[in-house]
Amino acid sequence: MTVSALAFADSTVETFDDIRTARDKPGAVWVRASDATAAELEHVADVFDIHHLSVEDIRNDVRPKAEMFDDYTFVLLKTATLVPEDTTFREEIDIESVGLFIGEDWLVSLSEHDIDAVGRIWQAALDGDQRILRGPDFIVYRICDGLVDGFFDVLDQIEAQIETVEDAVITDTSIETLESINNLRRELLSFRKLVWPTREAVATLARGDPEEVRPETEKYFRDVYDHLFQLVDLTETYRELASGARDIYLNSLSVSTNEVMKKLTVVATIVLPLTFVVGLYGMNFRNSPYNIPEFGWTYGYPAVMVGMLSVTLILLVYFRKMEWL
Amino acid sequence: MTVSALAFADSTVETFDDIRTARDKPGAVWVRASDATAAELEHVADVFDIHHLSVEDIRNDVRPKAEMFDDYTFVLLKTATLVPEDTTFREEIDIESVGLFIGEDWLVSLSEHDIDAVGRIWQAALDGDQRILRGPDFIVYRICDGLVDGFFDVLDQIEAQIETVEDAVITDTSIETLESINNLRRELLSFRKLVWPTREAVATLARGDPEEVRPETEKYFRDVYDHLFQLVDLTETYRELASGARDIYLNSLSVSTNEVMKKLTVVATIVLPLTFVVGLYGMNFRNSPYNIPEFGWTYGYPAVMVGMLSVTLILLVYFRKMEWL
Amino acid sequence: MTVSALAFADSTVETFDDIRTARDKPGAVWVRASDATAAELEHVADVFDIHHLSVEDIRNDVRPKAEMFDDYTFVLLKTATLVPEDTTFREEIDIESVGLFIGEDWLVSLSEHDIDAVGRIWQAALDGDQRILRGPDFIVYRICDGLVDGFFDVLDQIEAQIETVEDAVITDTSIETLESINNLRRELLSFRKLVWPTREAVATLARGDPEEVRPETEKYFRDVYDHLFQLVDLTETYRELASGARDIYLNSLSVSTNEVMKKLTVVATIVLPLTFVVGLYGMNFRNSPYNIPEFGWTYGYPAVMVGMLSVTLILLVYFRKMEWL
Amino acid sequence: MTVSALAFADSTVETFDDIRTARDKPGAVWVRASDATAAELEHVADVFDIHHLSVEDIRNDVRPKAEMFDDYTFVLLKTATLVPEDTTFREEIDIESVGLFIGEDWLVSLSEHDIDAVGRIWQAALDGDQRILRGPDFIVYRICDGLVDGFFDVLDQIEAQIETVEDAVITDTSIETLESINNLRRELLSFRKLVWPTREAVATLARGDPEEVRPETEKYFRDVYDHLFQLVDLTETYRELASGARDIYLNSLSVSTNEVMKKLTVVATIVLPLTFVVGLYGMNFRNSPYNIPEFGWTYGYPAVMVGMLSVTLILLVYFRKMEWL
Amino acid sequence: MTVSALAFADSTVETFDDIRTARDKPGAVWVRASDATAAELEHVADVFDIHHLSVEDIRNDVRPKAEMFDDYTFVLLKTATLVPEDTTFREEIDIESVGLFIGEDWLVSLSEHDIDAVGRIWQAALDGDQRILRGPDFIVYRICDGLVDGFFDVLDQIEAQIETVEDAVITDTSIETLESINNLRRELLSFRKLVWPTREAVATLARGDPEEVRPETEKYFRDVYDHLFQLVDLTETYRELASGARDIYLNSLSVSTNEVMKKLTVVATIVLPLTFVVGLYGMNFRNSPYNIPEFGWTYGYPAVMVGMLSVTLILLVYFRKMEWL
Ligand SMILES: [Mg+2]
Ligand SMILES: [Mg+2]
Ligand SMILES: [Mg+2]
Ligand SMILES: [Mg+2]
Ligand SMILES: [Mg+2]
Ligand SMILES: [Mg+2]
Ligand SMILES: [Mg+2]
Ligand SMILES: [Mg+2]
Ligand SMILES: [Mg+2]
Ligand SMILES: [Mg+2]
Ligand SMILES: [Mg+2]
Ligand SMILES: [Mg+2]
Ligand SMILES: [Mg+2]
Ligand SMILES: [Mg+2]
Ligand SMILES: [Mg+2]
Ligand SMILES: [Mg+2]
Ligand SMILES: [Mg+2]
Ligand SMILES: [Mg+2]
Ligand SMILES: [Mg+2]
Ligand SMILES: [Mg+2]
Ligand SMILES: [Mg+2]
Ligand SMILES: [Mg+2]
Ligand SMILES: [Mg+2]
Ligand SMILES: [Mg+2]
Ligand SMILES: [Mg+2]
Ligand SMILES: [Mg+2]
Ligand SMILES: [Mg+2]
Ligand SMILES: [Mg+2]
Ligand SMILES: [Mg+2]
Ligand SMILES: [Mg+2]
Ligand SMILES: [Mg+2]
Repeated sequence: MTVSALAFADSTVETFDDIRTARDKPGAVWVRASDATAAELEHVADVFDIHHLSVEDIRNDVRPKAEMFDDYTFVLLKTATLVPEDTTFREEIDIESVGLFIGEDWLVSLSEHDIDAVGRIWQAALDGDQRILRGPDFIVYRICDGLVDGFFDVLDQIEAQIETVEDAVITDTSIETLESINNLRRELLSFRKLVWPTREAVATLARGDPEEVRPETEKYFRDVYDHLFQLVDLTETYRELASGARDIYLNSLSVSTNEVMKKLTVVATIVLPLTFVVGLYGMNFRNSPYNIPEFGWTYGYPAVMVGMLSVTLILLVYFRKMEWL
Repeated sequence: MTVSALAFADSTVETFDDIRTARDKPGAVWVRASDATAAELEHVADVFDIHHLSVEDIRNDVRPKAEMFDDYTFVLLKTATLVPEDTTFREEIDIESVGLFIGEDWLVSLSEHDIDAVGRIWQAALDGDQRILRGPDFIVYRICDGLVDGFFDVLDQIEAQIETVEDAVITDTSIETLESINNLRRELLSFRKLVWPTREAVATLARGDPEEVRPETEKYFRDVYDHLFQLVDLTETYRELASGARDIYLNSLSVSTNEVMKKLTVVATIVLPLTFVVGLYGMNFRNSPYNIPEFGWTYGYPAVMVGMLSVTLILLVYFRKMEWL
Repeated sequence: MTVSALAFADSTVETFDDIRTARDKPGAVWVRASDATAAELEHVADVFDIHHLSVEDIRNDVRPKAEMFDDYTFVLLKTATLVPEDTTFREEIDIESVGLFIGEDWLVSLSEHDIDAVGRIWQAALDGDQRILRGPDFIVYRICDGLVDGFFDVLDQIEAQIETVEDAVITDTSIETLESINNLRRELLSFRKLVWPTREAVATLARGDPEEVRPETEKYFRDVYDHLFQLVDLTETYRELASGARDIYLNSLSVSTNEVMKKLTVVATIVLPLTFVVGLYGMNFRNSPYNIPEFGWTYGYPAVMVGMLSVTLILLVYFRKMEWL
Repeated sequence: MTVSALAFADSTVETFDDIRTARDKPGAVWVRASDATAAELEHVADVFDIHHLSVEDIRNDVRPKAEMFDDYTFVLLKTATLVPEDTTFREEIDIESVGLFIGEDWLVSLSEHDIDAVGRIWQAALDGDQRILRGPDFIVYRICDGLVDGFFDVLDQIEAQIETVEDAVITDTSIETLESINNLRRELLSFRKLVWPTREAVATLARGDPEEVRPETEKYFRDVYDHLFQLVDLTETYRELASGARDIYLNSLSVSTNEVMKKLTVVATIVLPLTFVVGLYGMNFRNSPYNIPEFGWTYGYPAVMVGMLSVTLILLVYFRKMEWL
Repeated sequence: MTVSALAFADSTVETFDDIRTARDKPGAVWVRASDATAAELEHVADVFDIHHLSVEDIRNDVRPKAEMFDDYTFVLLKTATLVPEDTTFREEIDIESVGLFIGEDWLVSLSEHDIDAVGRIWQAALDGDQRILRGPDFIVYRICDGLVDGFFDVLDQIEAQIETVEDAVITDTSIETLESINNLRRELLSFRKLVWPTREAVATLARGDPEEVRPETEKYFRDVYDHLFQLVDLTETYRELASGARDIYLNSLSVSTNEVMKKLTVVATIVLPLTFVVGLYGMNFRNSPYNIPEFGWTYGYPAVMVGMLSVTLILLVYFRKMEWL
């Protein structure tokens, strides 16, 4: 689908192929364009007298915003979806722009591709759902609401990833774990950069700054604003969780190094002195009663063995008590 | 209990089953609903002309706020209780919403479950306590005050946990200690996200922005505001304590590794040279007066033993002086 | 002492037992209460029509503030003294509240215990010091000034502690050093939470917001404000010093571990090869001219000794050059 | 080229050698100076009554700004190019200043050297491009737009560097890697200090504060503002990436140390006990049936060998299972 | 020099001993006092009706500020010079206060000691330099400008120190290096605390808030403001450089420890197995063809030597390939 128009007045809904005819009808009109050609877009902009800079904003990576023009208010919003990254199993946030132009009795919605949240409202409007057809500003509210629901889905997925990482940090000290945490932090950063300006844009509508937003619709935008506030809070909480996971990861490594050193020290402390003792009785002194008289003892060897065994046992008990073993 | 109404005027208090009758009585009315069915809630909203978005806010996880509507002011507050987590022995903060709708001569309080702080005020009002029945705004103050007292209880429990953790960090270098600290930081973060917007909501009432708050009640809300300010301060202090505990924990580990390395070095520095010496006299050179003449000495073995003992003692004194032992 | 009153007009000063009589005198009156009973406090509040919430603020741990009421301005200030902690040799900041109620021609000062800074001004006023008796607002300035001098004393003591800690961090790698630093950071945090709202309260007076502060007194409060600004700056500087000390402490530990490892490596690198060599000549190969022919050499043993000594010396020179020794 | 002038009105474009003549022509004039002598600059300043402080700002390292004077608005902008550093292979950001003086019907652009982005617009203007010749404010917009495109180029190069560094951190633990990361952080810091005030300056123009900016040009500056907002966002994201790379670098080192210690411990744990065993059978006890009876066994040597081999194999399997090998 | 006065009108300059006479002359007067006695200061304050709190501010350590009084504006500025510290070779920032009182047609400059930047302007004024004698506000601008030049000198010296430290961090892992970095951070902190309020004070003058600053002088203060902005930027950049140097320092230590461990592991991995082998052939098994038959081989000893040499070479190649050597 490319460009379609829908005019509604009282309880009637009508679709049009020619958007100029639709515009001239009494009542309100909603023109929706996606996957539209440059020529089609130009025609829409021409009919509703939309500034070309705004149309370009939808194609470029401009942040969400609400911008008031003489005859309409331009609201730029974004959808977010987590998609697998090209080269790895990780995910990154995929973002699509939706441009909403709110006139006194018209609404134009533009997007490069078909947007789910917009499509669902459009279908309900076609079906004559009177809970939607309260005016262009109310349709914008419904679209905002749908997009924000999508944000919550993304954050749910990120939360699941954080839980996976929190389990991994203690058991897996490989660098990949840290890379996963960094990846999460990056996603949350992108997400915050998406939600924050969306909140500001919706705040503009909730305050009723644009004259196209009627007083009775303001409280609906305030409701969306509250949800965006919640999203910002959650994002911060998840960033803190990711930081905590990183700290535990870094620390697991230190604990591991500490334990490896303890094991090495235990082995060295027990075996090195024993090796010294057996080396002692490997010496070749002779020809004098003072030179290694132990060699002449009947129980020399068993005595040494018992002595070494005792020392070993004492050290083992000591290290066990020190919790080095 | 589900929905009940209480009308008060001068010094009389009366309960009603039908809330519309209660509303139409001269004097003020307080309608309280908890564990109410959807139909009951709709009826209350209908009688007092309350917007359905506000009723939904109470069920959703929206932050505390004070929102002015045409005929009433909606104050959304939260209770906080520390409860054990599902799967571990740790605790997390359990949060319940209370919605307060303040009209000129009416008050509606809604909550999903029965809220202690509300129930106590209700009972006192039923008993005709004139210190409470000064008007809807004053009852809201009393409820705020009770909820904030609950916040202090939570913070007291968190403080006790911090003290436990501060004792643990030096003796216990296991990862669990760090996880406890992270858990505490997380609780404090949640708590801050609860107290901060509550403070903003109460500030709105303390400034007397809503016309339903009378000038003589403002100073009471200012008092609650001061307590919420104190809570924010305490939360920050506890976050700093938790950070300090984490630093000490991380450092205890480094001190431990340092000491393990010192012990290993002491053992190696003493035993390895001795092992070399006894290895030296285990060599099999012979057939020449220049080859290990020590073997021919009468006191060869005792001399070597005394030499090794001396070196050992000197090294022990040295390491003791270096505080490596 | 509990409650006393002092009336002044032109150049006369008079004391009163009954505060209501004092209040009704022409000229201004200063009523001072400390260690007062609940009944006495109630009487004072009654005579000057002071709100009970403000009196309670003095007993509770409310932050410093300046709050304007209809007939007076309530200024809540705090004194700070460093006192030894109960259980350790460390110190913590002890805080007392002073409530100042400034009326058009009266001043009430309340505190739980006797406050030095207030007592000194009171005595000077009794002595008829005309540099003090310029009006209730000027007396408040003098009390502020005295309290802020006390803050500087506390910060001087904290500075001395920082200097002690800065000397300790290099020589003493025990955990106690880090605990001292954390303790300092905690004290500075408490101190900042004290000074910051005091500065805000004094700013309110310096701007002349309350009508009880006359224009000619504003510049005196601006002077106190400047001192509080300086205190905030110093507190931040000391926090940075404490952070620097902590970094040096943590690093001293790393340097120590590094040096221990170097010593161990030097010992192992020198002694282990030597032990191998003497082990080599402890082997029992025989019965063939190819089996350890060195045993037959006349200077076998001296040659081996010289070889080992040379290697040892070369290694010692090498490690000395590498600064590992 | 030094100083040139270009006057345009309706659809005619004319160049002038004498700037005063150009100024006096009906229509608008653009005077462009680069590599100009002090005398030439003074002459330009004199003709357009430009303050000498502004001219000096272009030579000094003053931050981008928009400053309103009585008869004109002075906009100071900067170009950015990444150039190799003098002494190393690293790059640093090279910055050039462009001063734009916007009068009611004139524009003066000054720069120390020839600026590409300005030259391209100049050429198009000379060619009579009507999309440029909409007035002095619109030309300023076109220049801003060109400079901001240059900022994106710089950020693209920095992004490429970050990708290189992200690959290096895991494999190369030499200090150079950390120095590269620090260098990147430094570049990003410089870049942020460039973009931030540029954004503020453009915001001034986008709000239409200076009267020389006509209402219909404001939306173009808003478009540039959006791009600068995007640049600030990207810069923060890249700083976060650089921080993440640093963390991974530091951690790779810790992982490496941990693995080295494990290898050492494995070698010591296997070989030291074996050395003890062979030392045991190197002892010289004799002359008693209790002294090392193993020497008399027929299969003594093979038994010891098999024993040692078994222990070694068991330890190898154990360490492999522990993932130390 | 203590107190001197200089009156100027049109193009005449006159000096006076009596400041009251100077003040009463038509035209403007500049009174400059340094190293003045308390009595002299009191006289100056008396003649120009200057508040004693301002005079005290110059002696105390009050932050730079611009404060408006009824008849004059008080500007408190500071000079900065780097001086060697008392006890070490380090430097610290030495700060002197300059008080400037700007009246409608008079200027009083006070300082405890002679200030270079003030002296130079004074001399030029005495010489009748018309570029200075444009009024009291313009003289204040010239003094500000001179003081800010001094700030740039200080920052240049700090930059030189940072470069020294950046070279040291890689080669010198002693604690002194870290102390130098901390010292630098401290200096930069002090410097920031100096520049920041100076910028605020100059901003007040640049906005023309005080009526003593004429509109045509505002742009000169804006110029000084820009320089102070630059100083703040530079200070932040240098703080970042110092942080980067600290990170490299800390990391050099980790790299060193890592390399030491690798060396130890190489030595142990090569020598310990060899020692085991020679210990093996030092065993005393005999009296059976199965007991160490190698002893009977003709080439037993050469075979063992070749075996050990091969293993050593293989390990050396392996470790070289692993970059452990
Ligand atoms: Mg972190
Ligand atoms: Mg963290
Ligand atoms: Mg960090
Ligand atoms: Mg951190
Ligand atoms: Mg961290
Ligand atoms: Mg950290
Ligand atoms: Mg920390
Ligand atoms: Mg920390
Ligand atoms: Mg911290
Ligand atoms: Mg930190
Ligand atoms: Mg940290
Ligand atoms: Mg820190
Ligand atoms: Mg730090
Ligand atoms: Mg630090
Ligand atoms: Mg720090
Ligand atoms: Mg830190
Ligand atoms: Mg740190
Ligand atoms: Mg750290
Ligand atoms: Mg970082
Ligand atoms: Mg980091
Ligand atoms: Mg960091
Ligand atoms: Mg970071
Ligand atoms: Mg860090
Ligand atoms: Mg970090
Ligand atoms: Mg840092
Ligand atoms: Mg850093
Ligand atoms: Mg840091
Ligand atoms: Mg840093
Ligand atoms: Mg950091
Ligand atoms: Mg750092
Ligand atoms: Mg750090």
